[in-house]
Amino acid sequence: MSIRIGARYEGNGRCEFIVWAPQASEVATKLFLPEVTMIPMERDEWGYWRARAENVMPGAQYLYRINNDEERPDPASHFQPLGVHSPSAVVAHGDFAWSDQTWAGVPQEELVIYELHTGAFTPEGTFDAIIPRLAELRALGVTAIELMPVAEFPGERNWGYDGVYPFSVHHAYGGPAGLKRLVNACHEAGLAVILDVVYNHLGPEGNYLSRFAPYFTDKYRTPWGSAINFDDARSDGVRNYFIENALHWFGAYHVDGLRLDAIHAIYDLSARHFLQELAERVAEFSARQGRKYLLLAESDSNDPRVVRPKEMGGHGLDAQWLDDFHHSLRTLLTEERCGYYADYGLVAHLVKAIREGFVYSGEYSPHRQRKHGSSSADRPGHQFIVFARNHDQVGNRMLGERLPKLVSFDALKLAAGAVLISPFIPLLFMGEEYAEEAPFLYFVSHGDADLIRAVREGRKEEFKAFEWAGEPPDPQAVETFRQSKLDWESRKHGRRRVMREFYRELLRLRREVPALAAFDKNNLEIAGQEELRLVFLRRWSGGSQVFCVMNFDRRKAVFNAALPSGRWKKLLDSADEEWEGVGSSLPERIEAEKSLTVSGLSFALYELETAG
Amino acid sequence: MSIRIGARYEGNGRCEFIVWAPQASEVATKLFLPEVTMIPMERDEWGYWRARAENVMPGAQYLYRINNDEERPDPASHFQPLGVHSPSAVVAHGDFAWSDQTWAGVPQEELVIYELHTGAFTPEGTFDAIIPRLAELRALGVTAIELMPVAEFPGERNWGYDGVYPFSVHHAYGGPAGLKRLVNACHEAGLAVILDVVYNHLGPEGNYLSRFAPYFTDKYRTPWGSAINFDDARSDGVRNYFIENALHWFGAYHVDGLRLDAIHAIYDLSARHFLQELAERVAEFSARQGRKYLLLAESDSNDPRVVRPKEMGGHGLDAQWLDDFHHSLRTLLTEERCGYYADYGLVAHLVKAIREGFVYSGEYSPHRQRKHGSSSADRPGHQFIVFARNHDQVGNRMLGERLPKLVSFDALKLAAGAVLISPFIPLLFMGEEYAEEAPFLYFVSHGDADLIRAVREGRKEEFKAFEWAGEPPDPQAVETFRQSKLDWESRKHGRRRVMREFYRELLRLRREVPALAAFDKNNLEIAGQEELRLVFLRRWSGGSQVFCVMNFDRRKAVFNAALPSGRWKKLLDSADEEWEGVGSSLPERIEAEKSLTVSGLSFALYELETAG
Repeated sequence: MSIRIGARYEGNGRCEFIVWAPQASEVATKLFLPEVTMIPMERDEWGYWRARAENVMPGAQYLYRINNDEERPDPASHFQPLGVHSPSAVVAHGDFAWSDQTWAGVPQEELVIYELHTGAFTPEGTFDAIIPRLAELRALGVTAIELMPVAEFPGERNWGYDGVYPFSVHHAYGGPAGLKRLVNACHEAGLAVILDVVYNHLGPEGNYLSRFAPYFTDKYRTPWGSAINFDDARSDGVRNYFIENALHWFGAYHVDGLRLDAIHAIYDLSARHFLQELAERVAEFSARQGRKYLLLAESDSNDPRVVRPKEMGGHGLDAQWLDDFHHSLRTLLTEERCGYYADYGLVAHLVKAIREGFVYSGEYSPHRQRKHGSSSADRPGHQFIVFARNHDQVGNRMLGERLPKLVSFDALKLAAGAVLISPFIPLLFMGEEYAEEAPFLYFVSHGDADLIRAVREGRKEEFKAFEWAGEPPDPQAVETFRQSKLDWESRKHGRRRVMREFYRELLRLRREVPALAAFDKNNLEIAGQEELRLVFLRRWSGGSQVFCVMNFDRRKAVFNAALPSGRWKKLLDSADEEWEGVGSSLPERIEAEKSLTVSGLSFALYELETAG
Repeated sequence: MSIRIGARYEGNGRCEFIVWAPQASEVATKLFLPEVTMIPMERDEWGYWRARAENVMPGAQYLYRINNDEERPDPASHFQPLGVHSPSAVVAHGDFAWSDQTWAGVPQEELVIYELHTGAFTPEGTFDAIIPRLAELRALGVTAIELMPVAEFPGERNWGYDGVYPFSVHHAYGGPAGLKRLVNACHEAGLAVILDVVYNHLGPEGNYLSRFAPYFTDKYRTPWGSAINFDDARSDGVRNYFIENALHWFGAYHVDGLRLDAIHAIYDLSARHFLQELAERVAEFSARQGRKYLLLAESDSNDPRVVRPKEMGGHGLDAQWLDDFHHSLRTLLTEERCGYYADYGLVAHLVKAIREGFVYSGEYSPHRQRKHGSSSADRPGHQFIVFARNHDQVGNRMLGERLPKLVSFDALKLAAGAVLISPFIPLLFMGEEYAEEAPFLYFVSHGDADLIRAVREGRKEEFKAFEWAGEPPDPQAVETFRQSKLDWESRKHGRRRVMREFYRELLRLRREVPALAAFDKNNLEIAGQEELRLVFLRRWSGGSQVFCVMNFDRRKAVFNAALPSGRWKKLLDSADEEWEGVGSSLPERIEAEKSLTVSGLSFALYELETAG
């Protein structure tokens, strides 16, 4: 069983405070009611300190006083109304009037995820401002929104990966109540909510966790410094902290799933990996609640154990991001070959991604300078999440260019087709559905002057190779954040409107054509022609069959491999004038054709009408 | 496929040299024939440098010259005749006249391992000096000797864990030819040879590996400093180095199995753990050779994945040391409760060890201050190796006291019984079979003055809590090593002779009574009585059945739990006068007895004569 932590408001002014500080000799809760009240806490054998208080109104602020000296906010604070360095606030979760009692979640196989950044998605940058847009996302075919991390980070602007209070909801976004209103509205609109959470590091400013307990270990070094202590002495308390965190989002906020950031940086060499324990605990919680809560991981390890069940020695997570698919697709559309893109660029890579999942399943990776990965061919398609872009691939570029700034309109449609016709769960990054052209830049709003300087310098260093293109935008500048906001109104006009319709049509087909709605990788056939840069994909489910041809070359290609027998009807051709293409060169129906002429950078889909 | 490294003597004066130095711009082999000959090497795409030479006689010495500057011995040297800082020597493995062509190895289920230190086992301290003692070990019932590490370490005296040339055989022990003579003699005597190898660190003196390639990574910190690079950039070459090392011992030395030292310090977070790759490669080699080569691990993780097969997500090693059994047994015999012994001390611990393997299978460990381990109940008994002592438990004490210095003669017999009647593979530490009383101290013979000082200081620091007992013996002193040698002649006299007979009798019963020779943990029943410090164990196989009672209390105990029905014959009682005990208080035969009176610190074994 896990141990509750944080401030638990019980109603009628009663509140229990629990904090883990195993090495402290004395801990007290300092309450601002508003008159200052110091309540001594009692330690249990595991180093958890507890106190009960009366006459605490929701919103009451508090700090913990350690060893009668240092005063710090609650590591498990639910709300930091004044920022990372100020007191925590008591949240009365029971006060919210939920209207999602009949909500049963979205089956994993029906997920179409829309990743968004709360601050940049709307001009207001709040949870409440998202709500009016939900109906439109639902109409587009989206079934879940995924929020970039919302935990309290320094200042008002941040991607979210500098969060330092993993249980809290950022004050600038609308705090706990704002998030609940959004989740409730999503459920009313038929949308699931996935929340991005960071269990591999904490941000560099306002992180006081070490003052309370050994949350970090020197045993490992991550890209962000000392690793979080998942397997060293006293790690049970750290594991409890993050497991409680996961359950907190499900229990108090009705969130449907978590996206676990960069799990390859969760270092745990113990006999029971933290992620396995987390998955078991979430499965128990799901069983108790009678609905399934999802754990979706970002992983750079190409390790099928992440999503394999426990019986096969896996961690048992539900699905993971498939970066290999993105990189394979992207390098067929752009000339980028820097960094990890060096490992991709062939039609064969995309073919393998669609067939097996991991492209690197033990092969030598030039970028990593070692063999990488293990085969995921045994895993079903709905355990992988694919995308033509996400916040990282946009925002980690020096100028934050979205794909429409880098490739043609035709290429964008082709990319959309490849993602949405794949046997995987698709993820869209906010604005991609209408080819948004605003950048998504890297932005922060730290308070510490040294840190601000370090981040600026780090960013310059990172892009030194691109000095010819000027300096990277200042991450600390408000303007950098403002530029990153969506130009949402533009979706109604011209090509952007066309793109939106194209996504909607693809998502409709994905839902309605059984061969596209299925996830069984055994029910697909895929082949590529390297020189012609053509990919041919056939999928079936029961009597339903589709095939699609993707031409990654700028030039027309004649596809003359043996076409499947039977009579086929064209469902969609991205080269069609309807989609602002050059016009389809493909017949409406085909039967015993010897070859097909496919337009450059296009994507065509046929459905079987009469079996041959 | 792996890549051969080192100097390969092909006969007729021809030799090929291969060394991995991926970042070097130039490498040459500097041969002493004896006139100095410099042979430029050629680099392949993976950074392996090769050269061929003629007129090289076996024993010829060489160095590698890197970037036309630094000259170093071969990281894969097979022999360092003049020590760790001097040239490597070419070894002609084909020259040895093996006579073990019909040797098929010892089945894993029949292993009775005898761990010995080559330097301390005999007055001479050589491989050749071991040979005359093999017949006696075989007669005792031992089926395999396990050599503490023999790879070249600094100086002439060392436990072996400071080795820096993992492919070499120490010159003081007799070098490559000496080891071959010993292995050949073992096989002729019907004994297998297990070699202790260290893949988790290299020693502190004479380690020039980093001059050649990134053998180490700063990603992790082990107890010995930077970890060996098993998963970072260029780790493929490091993995190849150690896999080649394993195959080297099997191929060139006919060794039957490897004992992998402290695998919990082999840090590898990649999708295919190094140990999994090693096990797969050794299995392939075994298949090619038509006999099974064993991988036995020392692991502190209590992680059943170590010995689970690949299909269950395991590494697929053959067996692992079961420290939990030792600690459970030892803390029933002694009052030691320092360090890891704090986690043991109950009859229930030993009972769980015998029933399941790991005692800590997810429970909180006070010593580690965290939950520890995962259940090994699904693993068969022959995947665990148990012992009443080994080099570590003796040698890591300040005064290196063996068990006979710490507990009574009765307790020693009880410990032997617990180990040899258990459903696991037993391991004896040299001399234990005759209750050797010489200490086994920690000894080194470093050449570096700073290192010597550091080791002395470290040893003092380690035993600061025992200052009242004086200073620890100087590890660098020759005398410390000499004191650690066995007093082998003493085995013929008095109680030592009795103890030897007692071990021989137990090993005979273990072989000849089917219920004791079997390994199926499902065919056993075990119970403990905490207050009386009694353990009752029943084992069966087909029609054969035994039960034994172990009394860990100094006082007589009346065992009156329901005795198994049928007519039982006493096979052995350690309290018998024959074994220098107080005399057996147990009947020769029992049938429908209501209770048994068991002498203090004794061990009794009955066999079923007629089923009830």
